[in-house]
Amino acid sequence: MAKDLRITFLLDFYGDMLTDKQREVIEAYYNEDLSLAEIATEKGITRQGVRDAIKRAEQQLLEMEEQLGLAKRFKNVKDGLAKICDCALLIQEINSRGVNNPDINVNIAEIVECAQELALEE
Amino acid sequence: MAKDLRITFLLDFYGDMLTDKQREVIEAYYNEDLSLAEIATEKGITRQGVRDAIKRAEQQLLEMEEQLGLAKRFKNVKDGLAKICDCALLIQEINSRGVNNPDINVNIAEIVECAQELALEE
Repeated sequence: MAKDLRITFLLDFYGDMLTDKQREVIEAYYNEDLSLAEIATEKGITRQGVRDAIKRAEQQLLEMEEQLGLAKRFKNVKDGLAKICDCALLIQEINSRGVNNPDINVNIAEIVECAQELALEE
Repeated sequence: MAKDLRITFLLDFYGDMLTDKQREVIEAYYNEDLSLAEIATEKGITRQGVRDAIKRAEQQLLEMEEQLGLAKRFKNVKDGLAKICDCALLIQEINSRGVNNPDINVNIAEIVECAQELALEE
């Protein structure tokens, strides 16, 4: 069973909408990297039962993203924040090659800190 | 029945998770500003039926936000983007009072454009 990397990302957004049992199984598989057999032993269910539970949970996460598109919105924000950081660091470099105005550097530091903080929140 | 302003915001995030009927009624009330009586006439249900449907939909939106907290995450991003814009405009002002380096202005424009675009997406 191939692991779909989008699922890890979607789990972060919509995981709390799954049932406790679904979430436990899919997190064991995607976040703790346990095998189907290991999860089956741990949960006292069959390997096929684990596989079915994961498939159902994956389907639900993908449907939620199709309906709400919030993971995509956050991805866009993250990409934009990285671009903002790049621009700020360019300004810093240009400034340091010229008059190196400290007031400009203070504001650059604030932009970079703010962008990095927001990117981490996700 | 008091209108809860958070609901308009949550509708934008989670509206697509409601049933079509729920969404129609709550959007008529919150986004089109129709009265309960007007919605009742339009949908061919009682005023009390409209009120109940809105209450249930509100409850569902609030529960989804409690579980997922995505509206709050976006609100934080929006606040951060506004702060980034402020800092960029300050750098522009400082730059214009000094050497007014055009390369700095190009990067400031890019930061502001990027931050505003991201803020609008929400």
